[in-house]
Amino acid sequence: MINIALLGCGVVGSGVYKVITENQDILKQKMGKNINIKYILDRKDFEGEPFAHLIVKDFETIVNDDDIKVVVEVMGGVDFPYSCVKRCLLSGKHVVTSNKALVAEHGAELLDIAREKQINFLFEASVGGGIPILRPLISSITADKVLEISGILNGTTNHILTLMSEDGEDYEKALLDAQKRGFAEADPTADVMGHDSCRKIAILSSLAYGKTVYYKNIHTEGITHITPEDIKFAEKMGYVIKLLGKSKILGDKVFAMVAPYFLKKTHPLAMVRGVYNAIFVRGNMVGETMYYGMGAGSLPTASAVVSDVIDCIKHINKNVIVDWKNEDISILDINDALVSAFLRFEYKNLDDFINSVKIEFNTYEIVKLDDLSDEVALVVKGETEKVLSEKIKNLSSKGFKLHNMIRIEEN
Amino acid sequence: MINIALLGCGVVGSGVYKVITENQDILKQKMGKNINIKYILDRKDFEGEPFAHLIVKDFETIVNDDDIKVVVEVMGGVDFPYSCVKRCLLSGKHVVTSNKALVAEHGAELLDIAREKQINFLFEASVGGGIPILRPLISSITADKVLEISGILNGTTNHILTLMSEDGEDYEKALLDAQKRGFAEADPTADVMGHDSCRKIAILSSLAYGKTVYYKNIHTEGITHITPEDIKFAEKMGYVIKLLGKSKILGDKVFAMVAPYFLKKTHPLAMVRGVYNAIFVRGNMVGETMYYGMGAGSLPTASAVVSDVIDCIKHINKNVIVDWKNEDISILDINDALVSAFLRFEYKNLDDFINSVKIEFNTYEIVKLDDLSDEVALVVKGETEKVLSEKIKNLSSKGFKLHNMIRIEEN
Repeated sequence: MINIALLGCGVVGSGVYKVITENQDILKQKMGKNINIKYILDRKDFEGEPFAHLIVKDFETIVNDDDIKVVVEVMGGVDFPYSCVKRCLLSGKHVVTSNKALVAEHGAELLDIAREKQINFLFEASVGGGIPILRPLISSITADKVLEISGILNGTTNHILTLMSEDGEDYEKALLDAQKRGFAEADPTADVMGHDSCRKIAILSSLAYGKTVYYKNIHTEGITHITPEDIKFAEKMGYVIKLLGKSKILGDKVFAMVAPYFLKKTHPLAMVRGVYNAIFVRGNMVGETMYYGMGAGSLPTASAVVSDVIDCIKHINKNVIVDWKNEDISILDINDALVSAFLRFEYKNLDDFINSVKIEFNTYEIVKLDDLSDEVALVVKGETEKVLSEKIKNLSSKGFKLHNMIRIEEN
Repeated sequence: MINIALLGCGVVGSGVYKVITENQDILKQKMGKNINIKYILDRKDFEGEPFAHLIVKDFETIVNDDDIKVVVEVMGGVDFPYSCVKRCLLSGKHVVTSNKALVAEHGAELLDIAREKQINFLFEASVGGGIPILRPLISSITADKVLEISGILNGTTNHILTLMSEDGEDYEKALLDAQKRGFAEADPTADVMGHDSCRKIAILSSLAYGKTVYYKNIHTEGITHITPEDIKFAEKMGYVIKLLGKSKILGDKVFAMVAPYFLKKTHPLAMVRGVYNAIFVRGNMVGETMYYGMGAGSLPTASAVVSDVIDCIKHINKNVIVDWKNEDISILDINDALVSAFLRFEYKNLDDFINSVKIEFNTYEIVKLDDLSDEVALVVKGETEKVLSEKIKNLSSKGFKLHNMIRIEEN
């Protein structure tokens, strides 16, 4: 029997309790050992709940108990979890967390401590909820140099974009729907502005490329400016709009970005609907692979947490090699990144507009919608972000108002 | 440095050589050790190839060399590989194979030997080529009871069905195209009759449910009877046709089948085009997950083989727990399986047909195509295979000729 402790008993913590109790037989069969939850740290008492007797209020009880081999941190936040996780690792306890903010901020340092202590710090649930993606990166795509990762990493925004695309709703209505169903917070900022996806692509990229891709250095845009007109143009052009977290090796630098993208309907990520997530990984030998599943939710996330607990137990005296060094990788200046883009302009005379476009771009495509007489889409490829901004400014200065710019995924 | 040997230097073997030599730096970085190929067993001499000096003709050289820690079997066939692999394991060498026929026939026994010897027998590349799917089943979806697996497990047939669906080709032409591109063998029987998919779903199911699902007990159908008319009906009804390997827990039995299925266009597997493969896994906690990538090809398959070699090296003195016991699981009699189906009939008078259908089925759906005046599709749900066969016989005896029966995936 292995004793573990949970720090936090919210959505994920209660899921972890449920997975461990309801799948006890399965876990025993797969590991040959039982997992026993000895403590749950939480401010609430949970009176009447079957786990009320496990509740403790003082972290010291847990960190000072030598019986506890694995600690599960599912509190959220950064500073308090950081100090708890660090102390647990330093005291020789394996730690599992679902906390993306903690990992994106302190992952490399905490992995260093685990390595030194020959124990493990695992965080499968911090990206993609229940989707096995970090362990495949760490222990399956090991024969490859990873060249590129892109993912639909946030279920809230994907639900909103799916509703806008399939039901013709506008952003505000789709957000309300997501809030009603519990898929979006009352304050949806972290999701809709791309901050959540940013932390997740930072973690994925750090594991894929072996050094820290620091989340604060990733250019991040959200979906609040996407309109039904953009969706209509995308539909006509054979694309869907998805919020992607993306990163790619370019020489000795990494390109990384979170932004809405036009994705071809035949792209594997294009079929990811609603609150599902998927991560696309390209290796230099294996080619394209993709991983799909529930990106959030109590039980899927808890499933990933418990799989990490099992991995700790299987490697109780051994550090699982995680190739994420505690040094920053060099990020490509966004101005220098090449970009293909969909640009939606307001115009009065199409000939005037095209003449002005010709001055700026050698090759371009113009798309019109039958029921949108005062707008036109300009599609351009292979400019740097900096040059593209300048050219857009030039067009604006001639009276062609830019309604939106959305990048196009070229793969 | 770890010495390994390759048994066989065909498509996969030469890929393994290439992955290990070209990604040497990456492998060293991820493991802290170099992999050295000491021998390659093959009948050919490969004169002029950079690995010609590694070629040996006698298996005894390899099995008797204590320096060899990991043996990679990529010969194909069953009997000779079986005797080689068994002897290697018995002599304490880890074994990695891409050989699905070997694993489907002898997997459980070879895993037993590896367990006893505290070494490893790994076979990631035997299913889904480069897609990480076996390791996720063994070490990621560990907190779950797996309830269901279905997969597009054969690239040849998926390429043929994609051409039929997207370019309107008939089966024969699509097969010729696949052969021209090197996606199908001169004798395509093993692929188009479903035998290849059958061995793969047998391996997946055995790992998922913990006991042998023996491939000879799986009801298997191929795609040779699929016609452009079937494709047209599917298109009109919002489906695509895919060859699926499927299995599902039903009480204490397992339902398993390989057959073409109608899949809703919104199903994650529906977007899998061309020679790509994907495997869909449902767990009782994690819900739906899916794994996508190149199901064949020299480098993708070799990538999976080398990832297994790395796993062996990481666990050089330790058996990785693989929950596949050497006893057969009970397979549901196909006659008792519930089925929903698309039935394409020839008819002369629609009223006569519908009146006869009403005698057989309480609920049903009738679909007509504008440009197909003498055929009609009957869609029925929830019958057992046995009862459905009888009802089809009754309709045939009244002069309504059945052109095709294709099952419908209800998820």
